Amino acid sequence: MKNTIGNQLTLTLFGESHGEAVGCVLDGIPAGTEIDEALIRSFLERRKGAAQISTARREPDLFRLVSGVRNNRAEGTPVTVLIENKEARRSDYDKLWNVPRPSHADYPARLRYEGFEDLSGGGHFSGRLTAPLCAAGAICMSMLEKKGIRIASHILSLHGILDEAFDPLDPAEQIDVLKGKSFPVLRAAAEERMIEAVKAAREQKDSLGGILETAVTGMPGGIGEPFFDSVESMLSHAMFSIPAVKGIAFGAGFDFAAMRGSEANDPYVIRNGKIVTETNHNGGISGGITNGMPLIFTLAVRPASSIGLPQKSVDLETMQETELIIEGRHDPCILHRAVPCAEAMTALVLADLLIQRYGPAWFREG
Amino acid sequence: MKNTIGNQLTLTLFGESHGEAVGCVLDGIPAGTEIDEALIRSFLERRKGAAQISTARREPDLFRLVSGVRNNRAEGTPVTVLIENKEARRSDYDKLWNVPRPSHADYPARLRYEGFEDLSGGGHFSGRLTAPLCAAGAICMSMLEKKGIRIASHILSLHGILDEAFDPLDPAEQIDVLKGKSFPVLRAAAEERMIEAVKAAREQKDSLGGILETAVTGMPGGIGEPFFDSVESMLSHAMFSIPAVKGIAFGAGFDFAAMRGSEANDPYVIRNGKIVTETNHNGGISGGITNGMPLIFTLAVRPASSIGLPQKSVDLETMQETELIIEGRHDPCILHRAVPCAEAMTALVLADLLIQRYGPAWFREG
Amino acid sequence: MKNTIGNQLTLTLFGESHGEAVGCVLDGIPAGTEIDEALIRSFLERRKGAAQISTARREPDLFRLVSGVRNNRAEGTPVTVLIENKEARRSDYDKLWNVPRPSHADYPARLRYEGFEDLSGGGHFSGRLTAPLCAAGAICMSMLEKKGIRIASHILSLHGILDEAFDPLDPAEQIDVLKGKSFPVLRAAAEERMIEAVKAAREQKDSLGGILETAVTGMPGGIGEPFFDSVESMLSHAMFSIPAVKGIAFGAGFDFAAMRGSEANDPYVIRNGKIVTETNHNGGISGGITNGMPLIFTLAVRPASSIGLPQKSVDLETMQETELIIEGRHDPCILHRAVPCAEAMTALVLADLLIQRYGPAWFREG
Amino acid sequence: MKNTIGNQLTLTLFGESHGEAVGCVLDGIPAGTEIDEALIRSFLERRKGAAQISTARREPDLFRLVSGVRNNRAEGTPVTVLIENKEARRSDYDKLWNVPRPSHADYPARLRYEGFEDLSGGGHFSGRLTAPLCAAGAICMSMLEKKGIRIASHILSLHGILDEAFDPLDPAEQIDVLKGKSFPVLRAAAEERMIEAVKAAREQKDSLGGILETAVTGMPGGIGEPFFDSVESMLSHAMFSIPAVKGIAFGAGFDFAAMRGSEANDPYVIRNGKIVTETNHNGGISGGITNGMPLIFTLAVRPASSIGLPQKSVDLETMQETELIIEGRHDPCILHRAVPCAEAMTALVLADLLIQRYGPAWFREG
Repeated sequence: MKNTIGNQLTLTLFGESHGEAVGCVLDGIPAGTEIDEALIRSFLERRKGAAQISTARREPDLFRLVSGVRNNRAEGTPVTVLIENKEARRSDYDKLWNVPRPSHADYPARLRYEGFEDLSGGGHFSGRLTAPLCAAGAICMSMLEKKGIRIASHILSLHGILDEAFDPLDPAEQIDVLKGKSFPVLRAAAEERMIEAVKAAREQKDSLGGILETAVTGMPGGIGEPFFDSVESMLSHAMFSIPAVKGIAFGAGFDFAAMRGSEANDPYVIRNGKIVTETNHNGGISGGITNGMPLIFTLAVRPASSIGLPQKSVDLETMQETELIIEGRHDPCILHRAVPCAEAMTALVLADLLIQRYGPAWFREG
Repeated sequence: MKNTIGNQLTLTLFGESHGEAVGCVLDGIPAGTEIDEALIRSFLERRKGAAQISTARREPDLFRLVSGVRNNRAEGTPVTVLIENKEARRSDYDKLWNVPRPSHADYPARLRYEGFEDLSGGGHFSGRLTAPLCAAGAICMSMLEKKGIRIASHILSLHGILDEAFDPLDPAEQIDVLKGKSFPVLRAAAEERMIEAVKAAREQKDSLGGILETAVTGMPGGIGEPFFDSVESMLSHAMFSIPAVKGIAFGAGFDFAAMRGSEANDPYVIRNGKIVTETNHNGGISGGITNGMPLIFTLAVRPASSIGLPQKSVDLETMQETELIIEGRHDPCILHRAVPCAEAMTALVLADLLIQRYGPAWFREG
Repeated sequence: MKNTIGNQLTLTLFGESHGEAVGCVLDGIPAGTEIDEALIRSFLERRKGAAQISTARREPDLFRLVSGVRNNRAEGTPVTVLIENKEARRSDYDKLWNVPRPSHADYPARLRYEGFEDLSGGGHFSGRLTAPLCAAGAICMSMLEKKGIRIASHILSLHGILDEAFDPLDPAEQIDVLKGKSFPVLRAAAEERMIEAVKAAREQKDSLGGILETAVTGMPGGIGEPFFDSVESMLSHAMFSIPAVKGIAFGAGFDFAAMRGSEANDPYVIRNGKIVTETNHNGGISGGITNGMPLIFTLAVRPASSIGLPQKSVDLETMQETELIIEGRHDPCILHRAVPCAEAMTALVLADLLIQRYGPAWFREG
Repeated sequence: MKNTIGNQLTLTLFGESHGEAVGCVLDGIPAGTEIDEALIRSFLERRKGAAQISTARREPDLFRLVSGVRNNRAEGTPVTVLIENKEARRSDYDKLWNVPRPSHADYPARLRYEGFEDLSGGGHFSGRLTAPLCAAGAICMSMLEKKGIRIASHILSLHGILDEAFDPLDPAEQIDVLKGKSFPVLRAAAEERMIEAVKAAREQKDSLGGILETAVTGMPGGIGEPFFDSVESMLSHAMFSIPAVKGIAFGAGFDFAAMRGSEANDPYVIRNGKIVTETNHNGGISGGITNGMPLIFTLAVRPASSIGLPQKSVDLETMQETELIIEGRHDPCILHRAVPCAEAMTALVLADLLIQRYGPAWFREG
């Protein structure tokens, strides 16, 4: 399905970085759903990143809901988000066309689109396409919040600097702390050190990688499907659509490799009359299906591939090796900008799974 | 789509561990594709695991191709693999029904299917369902091999014991070494230590986790789609359908977190007149699309949740905490059994992407 | 998706006429749904046709539910129906391979599958594949009946002999009359004349076409989607999968061509406190969505293409024109056998649309 | 999938009649495909209808290709067509909201969207949504034309006035005649009488139904899939998304009902060294798959439901019967406007099927 994702709630993404517009069509939002434009704006704002450490391109990101919404309510028909590109500057990028930027989409895109692709600013591969993803996710997020489901992501590590991890049994208070933060880190000391590292990387014309962690509270148990539509399958499919994500792990993730079954299993116990697990190594999912505990997963985010340092590459026309210096705007760190994307895609996937399980009307009930 | 995966090449999975049969329908295999029954058998054999360290259940796993194949050639219509359950023993498991096994699907499945699920031996959630996955994957594997594409997985680590990693630039010889191994490890010393660890775990009625690594050579560049059908999205979606997989990482994966862009980027160079990358930290994928380098990814596999040790759980009827001892067969290690599954799902995903890119006839060309 | 149809309730079809088996996988049946094996048997029985006028092949059509059902209840996992071919006789058909039967799938299938297709008895194109369709439809039918939704089809015309049409405002009593009939015609006199015409056609080694009419009562209004998933789109998509169906029309259908808007519109009125339409020219659907009135549609069914008379054809090997006499079994009339197929596919489509609208739990509510 | 159709070539439709815009996202157009804006304009022009007999609303229908196109070539990424609504006049329609127009979507949409729908001018159900369908179809049409595949529709009958039918064996010259006609009828005398009938209907504040016929030449044989993705299934699914279409029939269609097999079958013969059929009663499709002969099908189009005459309806608030007079713009005939829609949807479906069969590169070959 290429640029469409989802089953009962589908998202179709379109646009190029320096074309006329980027946007998306979100189909399957139950009629009557409240559309919170302020929440959309706040997602877009966070995606742009804190000014002092992010890209120089300052698109206003004014979104228009060109269909599917009337009087701040979803009509039940496709909701289209359109974000015009005000500051498109194709010329900046033209010289790159024959010298692909290392670890960018340039060269694979050339093989895929055979020279017809628009690579200005990454074209359709640009991080700019995450703006409509965030807008769509914000709409799903308000649906979930009405049902008591909360989602938050933070920077768990940045170039080795560690934040505190989510409490896998009860991350509710941590989620509170993160609300609305443009550089979402739980411990102030870690945040400070991370920002310093980012600034240093900018000085060095380099970029830094890290790990994001996402927590979801309030998810009912019994959501997801065995095998191909497991919650893990659906979430991972969606997460790898966020540029620079190169890994995902649920619960203990790669730490399971050194564990025994007796350590990795989460025993069932009764707390306050409800069945819960005593630990939550499995990140709220067993057999691909939610068990009612918080969902916890991490994403490996590679350093942004656009850096100002000179790099080796190849001229595709002359087939000669050459040195490349990428002019223009670079983000020394994209982790904080990926945070609203991770939250948005999580919201989209969970809303879709919940519609499939309970029907669209469930979101309108008390 | 629940139990169906794929776009032009689709796999629909069915069956329960102790029902009449497990099987799958593989639709979209190009007419004329040679069906190599010996390769299917070898996948099923490897999935059953080496006798001395795996489960006592010894199903013959005799598969029947009940549709879509004539004279060892795909007819172009759906290929159905049926594997009857000869040794189904529902009674062994009935007592578990009200005391869910920790970190098994039992409790989530109860919430999902509301008491109508068949949990004998895991029912539809059983690892037994991976037998038809392996059969389907074997069919795709022979298609790919004819086009010079090779896939192999091995146990990169088992409870901390490390095998040698794939050479990300050229794993071809390592793939040769692994061919047909029932306990696929590259270094003999590591293999020996791993097997000892597994035997010890069996003594202790416990189980061990680990990491699998997969390499693919010969993949053309330009395969995959930006965003939702990226190679990473498609592979991860498929991999999380393998029971016990809790994480996936491409190339450097979670190690990217401590890298700089200047370290993480793979510079383009010319070697033997062809464009390649000098390093392959990105596992052969940039922007979600193959770049012509080997695909490399790892899977975190949690220790099998079925263990013989007593565990805490809850009686769902009385809502009392209780102790559970799981009788019956347990695998102290499922990593080697997950290897053909990982290879199979990789083959399925790549064959589907290649059909979409080049059309079904491509697989029949020289 | 080739051999898979449906969104939340999907059907995957497999098998060949003279292969090992035909069958299907029905995925998405809500857990706990009662599986009425007697109803499945009755659908299969009706599909085989009344003995005196149908094909000589007398397959017992013993179906096995090899997955997804336990104690006559759906488990919620894929339900697989397997029907082994007991009387497969490949040899009867081999000589046809190079001389395609006019208006059969033989020649198009040769172009599609390039010589690898199995054409014995029509292979995957055989009417025999409708047996699993009927079994799947029977399962959906019992779901619908529990919710007060009833479906019936009858032979509206056979080679010009007309039955009485359904009362578009209230066909309930007519549906009663048809229940379980193996040659479903409303008026006894028409039935008699039709059967005579069929017998005469058999004498003449020829076959006859006709029209089926289907009525559905009890459908709630508001089901379906504008544009691509309109009830008309979904039903027609499904109906054309029944071999020999060459046309579909909703309500007044092709008679609309001679009507004025003032005649064709169905005015809203109040009857017994409920909004209904005074006429039902539109067959219960406006804007692609049900309006609460009975669904009414007709299917044009071409005469079976297998006839005993000599026909002109071409030898594909020698590229010479030749005369073809098709040996073996021929149905002079397939209309009555298409009736349970039409009912089955209608049930499948409506159950899928209802699950999407109300969620799977709706089918379990009082 | 609600507002998305297609497999490898997908179309997602959005917008409301009196909202900000209507549009669509067309995904899967092979990179490098020439985008012929003049052809798009001509489709939109024809869809608006000949001025003297069509609706008073004169939208300029200026389309923008806001993504996926650069230098008149498809980039290979999603092509988005945006048509802003310049003449949106919500107020005209507000009074209708509680008195549904007979045989319009109003009442079913109320049941479906529970009061949140936008019904101004039909909202998402409006015929205006066919503008982006036509634009998308025009893009597919130029792809097909480059491969020698031609599509044309005409008004076969209008309120009983008959045009000449397509020659099912060779409609090429008739297709030439129709090219670019805004009121596409083959025989001038029929055209004249039809236009008079339309004018009379307008006088009478009424509307007229009719039948469209579509022909396709140059389609290779072997396209389509048995059962659910038959050419008939795919085309019918698409055609019923055109508002007012209530029936579809392939080849002889409902006339098959009075035919014998010996009359209905199309014998194979050799002409100019090629295998063709001597007749073409089956409209170029057997077993759901093209046989290389022209595709021929007809659509029943009901009279437009918007008429100026007073009609009976019900006030949904007071639940009283009432009389309704629909103010505003009405089309006495929509047949000629449906013609480019039928051509467009045909082009979309066939391009999708061809991409699946031959791969996207086929469209770029000589």
